Amino acid sequence: MNPTLEIFSQGEEIVTGQVVDTNAVWLSQQAVALGFTVTRHTAVGDKLDDLVQLLRDIAERADCCICTGGLGPTSDDLTAAAVAAAFNAPLQFDEIAFAQIQQYFINRNRVMAECNRKQAMLPQGSIRLENAVGTAPGFALQTGKCWFAFVPGVPAEMKHLFLQHIKPVLLMRYILKPSRLITIKTLGIGESDLQERLRTVPVPASVQLGFRAEIGEVQTKLLFPHDYPEQALDNLVETITSAIGDAVFAVDGRGQQPSDLIAVLDQLMSANRHSLAVVESVSHGLIAAKLVGVNWLQCALYEQPIINLAQRFNAVYCPDDLRTTAGNIARQVQSESGVTAVLIQLMAEINDKNDNKSLSVVTGLLINDQFKHAARTLNGDAKRTQQQAAFLALDLLRRYLQGKKIAA
Amino acid sequence: MNPTLEIFSQGEEIVTGQVVDTNAVWLSQQAVALGFTVTRHTAVGDKLDDLVQLLRDIAERADCCICTGGLGPTSDDLTAAAVAAAFNAPLQFDEIAFAQIQQYFINRNRVMAECNRKQAMLPQGSIRLENAVGTAPGFALQTGKCWFAFVPGVPAEMKHLFLQHIKPVLLMRYILKPSRLITIKTLGIGESDLQERLRTVPVPASVQLGFRAEIGEVQTKLLFPHDYPEQALDNLVETITSAIGDAVFAVDGRGQQPSDLIAVLDQLMSANRHSLAVVESVSHGLIAAKLVGVNWLQCALYEQPIINLAQRFNAVYCPDDLRTTAGNIARQVQSESGVTAVLIQLMAEINDKNDNKSLSVVTGLLINDQFKHAARTLNGDAKRTQQQAAFLALDLLRRYLQGKKIAA
Repeated sequence: MNPTLEIFSQGEEIVTGQVVDTNAVWLSQQAVALGFTVTRHTAVGDKLDDLVQLLRDIAERADCCICTGGLGPTSDDLTAAAVAAAFNAPLQFDEIAFAQIQQYFINRNRVMAECNRKQAMLPQGSIRLENAVGTAPGFALQTGKCWFAFVPGVPAEMKHLFLQHIKPVLLMRYILKPSRLITIKTLGIGESDLQERLRTVPVPASVQLGFRAEIGEVQTKLLFPHDYPEQALDNLVETITSAIGDAVFAVDGRGQQPSDLIAVLDQLMSANRHSLAVVESVSHGLIAAKLVGVNWLQCALYEQPIINLAQRFNAVYCPDDLRTTAGNIARQVQSESGVTAVLIQLMAEINDKNDNKSLSVVTGLLINDQFKHAARTLNGDAKRTQQQAAFLALDLLRRYLQGKKIAA
Repeated sequence: MNPTLEIFSQGEEIVTGQVVDTNAVWLSQQAVALGFTVTRHTAVGDKLDDLVQLLRDIAERADCCICTGGLGPTSDDLTAAAVAAAFNAPLQFDEIAFAQIQQYFINRNRVMAECNRKQAMLPQGSIRLENAVGTAPGFALQTGKCWFAFVPGVPAEMKHLFLQHIKPVLLMRYILKPSRLITIKTLGIGESDLQERLRTVPVPASVQLGFRAEIGEVQTKLLFPHDYPEQALDNLVETITSAIGDAVFAVDGRGQQPSDLIAVLDQLMSANRHSLAVVESVSHGLIAAKLVGVNWLQCALYEQPIINLAQRFNAVYCPDDLRTTAGNIARQVQSESGVTAVLIQLMAEINDKNDNKSLSVVTGLLINDQFKHAARTLNGDAKRTQQQAAFLALDLLRRYLQGKKIAA
């Protein structure tokens, strides 16, 4: 049995929905990776009684608890007072903490307000967690079976304190058996198709199989127990990756840095010394926006209608043939810009018999004197169509570069 | 005293940090707007005992509770069973719910799996909340002082059930005194500058003043009590808006739909029958990407380096004068595309004496035969610079259209 861990966030801005509690998400991922079972997240506002009761409840339930927020200098920052009341640990003035808070202001040429003194009051029996990136120190204390760590709610400070001071303590205090998470990332295949392809692959009961769909990308997640043999792990990942096929663009969790689609493309485009021009009639600037920071994107153009686009490049416009028009424009763009590759998308609106609108989209890639293309129908509002189109185009490029099949 | 409301989310994917609980954020905003005091968010996984205990605790604490998730057909969807166990309300087969589930599959030409039958089992004494957009119905029941509503975790289904079936019941069951939230939205001013400008504005103690910074936009939030006089509210909003000055681009919360920057621009550009071309050397496609769905964006171009861009449009390139080059290119783009307005950004890298890199950016707007321009220095990584640049350019357009001052 893994030790259990709860996450507790203090802040009116969280319970009123003004702020998304990204701290809880980040801390959960960290705790799961370390080998904890995260059992609960709780967020409360700035009512002292609520805080006190919640702290006592957690102390009875969990083996460990990380608390964020409520360590600021103002009167609605109540965490230390709540800890004092909940665990009979009166606040005491910590001279070292106070000297560090004073130094923080001196370093920034700012005058310390009197209220910052409050941040040096720590519950009796707690240990100080030094905060090198903000004013408030965190603190930690053991009560009953539960070890509590309290950190500020500012994400940068929270992360700093967790990584510097809390994680090392967790690794010492608990017997942790972290699971291994392998994530197989795919583009151009839906979640149900994925499941269908994996239906006949035998997955041992000790391995947890899950799926997660984001816009344009579906992830197959395999959670292996701590003691799963390395060779068997590799074999299962290989079997599943083969069963999925050409849609796989990356496998995360085997040592290297996690890789997203742009990182995969950047590596392949740079290695092959390609330069790219993009004609973004459907993706509406989004491909260029996603490719910020790469050095092989030379130009990107959005223009409507197609006839203006064709005229701009002196390309022959074939009104009923998107594919030929796309090829014509791509060749002109290439000769004008001198890039090695051109990615182009053109679309036509289509109305079905019930007058539902959809978009007929042709995606083309001109590269190494070949014009590869694929056709798709897209539905949905403008934002959704834009996203889908950008992923279709980038996936066509990815498939070509990885030597995968391109469906026409 | 407002009635209290808790939000409870069920799902392993939430407690393990795989998914951000956006449902809790959305529901909190809805509940606060209705006049509830949201006291707590709790997320738990799929352990039946945890769920049962939590439901009992909430029933004793809160006046109302909205629960999301755990209503699916599989064995880890435990919400209904937990309600049955917590409140002695055994599950009963609901024929109407089952007929609706069957119909859902018939409408989609799909075969219903046997496990979907489970979704028609509802706790005794609960009322069914019909789900027009998914398979699982929600349900609601009163226990002690607390009214519970249970909805699926799929955001679209959750929102549908809340707006269609839960909100009307809340308005009937509770005496609600919603506060009035006025949001003053600004661009091109930092949070500390904003606070400084408002330092001498007297704000009554009953009005809560807050600030929220997003990328490119800072919001000043005023929360007025339910019975605050309308005229006094208008006066205070007017005083604050004037004190802030030209940076204000919209004021939300006075009846109309909330408006973001793009909506404000869309209204002004359409009303003035403008058409736009954008040269996105710094924003890298992001302006076009943000403007998806408007019909006055005619073309957008990203191209590097500047000399290639100038050549493409036969514009005179002045190596040491970004402003003149930008004006030259803008005029050529306008005459070639026939648009009424051209927005252009050019940049040069600058190194300070410590060899820190930053970008010197000129943003220009050619409109009604005038060339308006502004210069700024940007720092940060490529993504951050891209975002800042896009907002700078759109803000220049906004200031011109709203007749505000443009800083050179």
